[in-house]
Amino acid sequence: MRTYIVLIAAATVVIGLTLFVFIADQRPKEVVSEGEVQSLELKNGMKVVVQENRRAPVVVTQVWYRVGGSYERAGITGISHVLEHMMFKGTEEMPAGKFSEVIAEHGGRENAFTSKDYTAYFQRISNEHLELCLSLEADRMRNLLLSEDEFLKEIEVVKEERRLRTDDKPTSLTYERFYASAFANNPYRKPIIGWMEDLNSMDIDDLREWYQTWYAPNNAILVVVGDVRAEEVFSMAKEYFASLKPADIPELKPRTEARQYGIQRVAVKVPAKIPFLVMGYKVPVLNTADNSEEVYALELLAGLLDGGNSSRFSKNLVRGSQLATSVSANYNLYALHDSLFTLSAIPASGVSTEQMENAIIEQITEIQQEPPTEAELARVKAQVVASSIYEQDSSFYQAMKIGILETVGLGWTTMDEYVERINAVTAEQVQHVAQKYFVEDQLTVAVLVPQPIDGQTLAGDALGAGDRHAH
Amino acid sequence: MRTYIVLIAAATVVIGLTLFVFIADQRPKEVVSEGEVQSLELKNGMKVVVQENRRAPVVVTQVWYRVGGSYERAGITGISHVLEHMMFKGTEEMPAGKFSEVIAEHGGRENAFTSKDYTAYFQRISNEHLELCLSLEADRMRNLLLSEDEFLKEIEVVKEERRLRTDDKPTSLTYERFYASAFANNPYRKPIIGWMEDLNSMDIDDLREWYQTWYAPNNAILVVVGDVRAEEVFSMAKEYFASLKPADIPELKPRTEARQYGIQRVAVKVPAKIPFLVMGYKVPVLNTADNSEEVYALELLAGLLDGGNSSRFSKNLVRGSQLATSVSANYNLYALHDSLFTLSAIPASGVSTEQMENAIIEQITEIQQEPPTEAELARVKAQVVASSIYEQDSSFYQAMKIGILETVGLGWTTMDEYVERINAVTAEQVQHVAQKYFVEDQLTVAVLVPQPIDGQTLAGDALGAGDRHAH
Repeated sequence: MRTYIVLIAAATVVIGLTLFVFIADQRPKEVVSEGEVQSLELKNGMKVVVQENRRAPVVVTQVWYRVGGSYERAGITGISHVLEHMMFKGTEEMPAGKFSEVIAEHGGRENAFTSKDYTAYFQRISNEHLELCLSLEADRMRNLLLSEDEFLKEIEVVKEERRLRTDDKPTSLTYERFYASAFANNPYRKPIIGWMEDLNSMDIDDLREWYQTWYAPNNAILVVVGDVRAEEVFSMAKEYFASLKPADIPELKPRTEARQYGIQRVAVKVPAKIPFLVMGYKVPVLNTADNSEEVYALELLAGLLDGGNSSRFSKNLVRGSQLATSVSANYNLYALHDSLFTLSAIPASGVSTEQMENAIIEQITEIQQEPPTEAELARVKAQVVASSIYEQDSSFYQAMKIGILETVGLGWTTMDEYVERINAVTAEQVQHVAQKYFVEDQLTVAVLVPQPIDGQTLAGDALGAGDRHAH
Repeated sequence: MRTYIVLIAAATVVIGLTLFVFIADQRPKEVVSEGEVQSLELKNGMKVVVQENRRAPVVVTQVWYRVGGSYERAGITGISHVLEHMMFKGTEEMPAGKFSEVIAEHGGRENAFTSKDYTAYFQRISNEHLELCLSLEADRMRNLLLSEDEFLKEIEVVKEERRLRTDDKPTSLTYERFYASAFANNPYRKPIIGWMEDLNSMDIDDLREWYQTWYAPNNAILVVVGDVRAEEVFSMAKEYFASLKPADIPELKPRTEARQYGIQRVAVKVPAKIPFLVMGYKVPVLNTADNSEEVYALELLAGLLDGGNSSRFSKNLVRGSQLATSVSANYNLYALHDSLFTLSAIPASGVSTEQMENAIIEQITEIQQEPPTEAELARVKAQVVASSIYEQDSSFYQAMKIGILETVGLGWTTMDEYVERINAVTAEQVQHVAQKYFVEDQLTVAVLVPQPIDGQTLAGDALGAGDRHAH
């Protein structure tokens, strides 16, 4: 979800960054210099991508695997994430827990994340310790022990994580049921954390099969960003990863979404104080679109609806009509499969989710009926571009962007097109995608219907009018 | 779906059959006589079940495989059914199409069917040709050619079948989307025929893997019913099937349904003349229930709502209030996984699906508030038992019942308990299951919203009042 806090922060750095991008854009492409991305493919199929950045004597190392929630079959949902946990539970060389200890001893920070289309492991450490990170990552890429004892402990940790982050978090639960209802065949319908029912029946053999199938150099991308020399990184990568054997990576079925024939609705009734609404329309992404212009138009549309204080949602629904405490629009153009353009909202106190839904539909209808003015379009473009550039102000996010683009199969060079493609979008294209994709028959609506907490009566009214503007 | 036509027909044979069952029930169990079921397990794990029945010099042969729609992973939905088609497309001994030809030449009829939990192949033939059937079935159990050419032709046949039976049939399409919306994790959410999108990406390698995985003697059951001697069938079965090698059959993950937190709704807007409503509550089945009494109470409840002219739906919604053209209740207690108790209806002309839904809910509320009288219960029990017995009046359905019970893991002896268990259900148990399972938060509702056909206006009003009683 976009949050206003981030965007307001982003706005403060817009001017400097826009300048930077302009300069970068004019630089001759053939010169390999600071800021340029360089890449190499090892003989075993592993890709290495390096971006030099000398702002601080620090390096961010990320190893990405092309596997995540969307790769999972029903019955073992959540397994990519469980395996991510197990990756810290020991090899012959590094017993359970030792990986994190060693990185910490060297003053580094490390962690990992699992998403729908990828699983990634990262360290941020003083650049002199890059080699340590690579040797450790190479070790656990093929030598993970996957002991049953460790698994039996860790699966409980994961279930606890699910309880905390999903089952006891009404908005997360609403999102989970929203995705499950929205898609019939598309793999994004399943939660990354996995259904609790599947976690309950997962065993160590499932994990072993998953690891054997997907964790191999030809299914991995090493991304290194920071104060390093690309040539050195390449030679280190060869030293540690080139000897690892590639595996036979299965080809996934396309999982094309089955046609939707009408609106879908799901209610989520759980103990909560505040109602919540999520609406989603089926849309293509860069990977799947016949016409990539539509994808950038959708991206711009997300910015037009929800991109800071001057966006339509903020102006019309939060400040103007005061119907919403918050409203957001979200669209991720860099996904493996077709996706959803989501619109979510917390209604203001006294406003029903039905009223909220109608108000959002009204905003959409306006765009469908009339394209944005050139002035609005220019402002939104500046915002969207700035927001994208702001992400690039950290080595970590730079590496992330590279990793995402590589794992979803677009390739890191795609990020260079972003600004140009966004700037090329016309007002009519924005109107056109709103007309084409925001149709009721492709809509799914999930509503969180708050239930009394511990037998108390609904506390929704406790939200004072003053809270309405808390964005 | 239960249909009134069948039930009315059933009613005409009730008296004779009730007598028959009573006699069967009193017969000493240890005597192996006509009508008794005998079974044997071959050393390779294949089960053979025989029921002698000398009414006519005919034999029904069925080979059942424990595989079907619910075994399939996303991305290859429909593969069990495609493989069923391919089973007629040739072995070394019997070229494509020859199987059916040979059976026909011997005056037999043959076909096959795929369901959620099983795939079965059958022949009905003069009893002297039993051996021919067994030799042909043994041959294709392990020696199927699966040629790519045949596959490329047959997949088009299957797609055409899908268009005919699902895409161009609004009620089927509504059922399909209903199941997809109702379940989040339970494998019954996927259509047996498969999503068209998956059929489009299926290839011969998928079929080969599916066949290798599931088609083996230790995953098959041979059921023979008719004018045969069990001992002869057993010895023939040994001759043809005992030499077939067993396979390592994978154990499926439980696929327990993820918890539902509120009502789910889906609209299906397609060209059609008449609206249609399907409602479903999540319920256990005999295989999954903690308390099997509940399962038989649900079975009786289905009969109470929809079991002939004196059932509540017929009396109150079709004839009484004239709200519905037809209403039916459906529950299948013999399934592998948890299932849905479904209530479907065609509203009478001028009645909205909302009114229809409310009227059905009202019927349910009545049972929740007040148990049925003893008189009603006795009448419903007689109907339910008769309807079950009527199915047994054909060798084919006798064999089917055995095959279903064996493939879902209950065992054929379960059918002997049916009458006794149904008769033991109390009025309070019927009320209890209605209260326990028919709760809004576990409900899914699908509505067919007719759209103009070829640009015509809606023709729903063309349904005259006279059609209201067309059950």
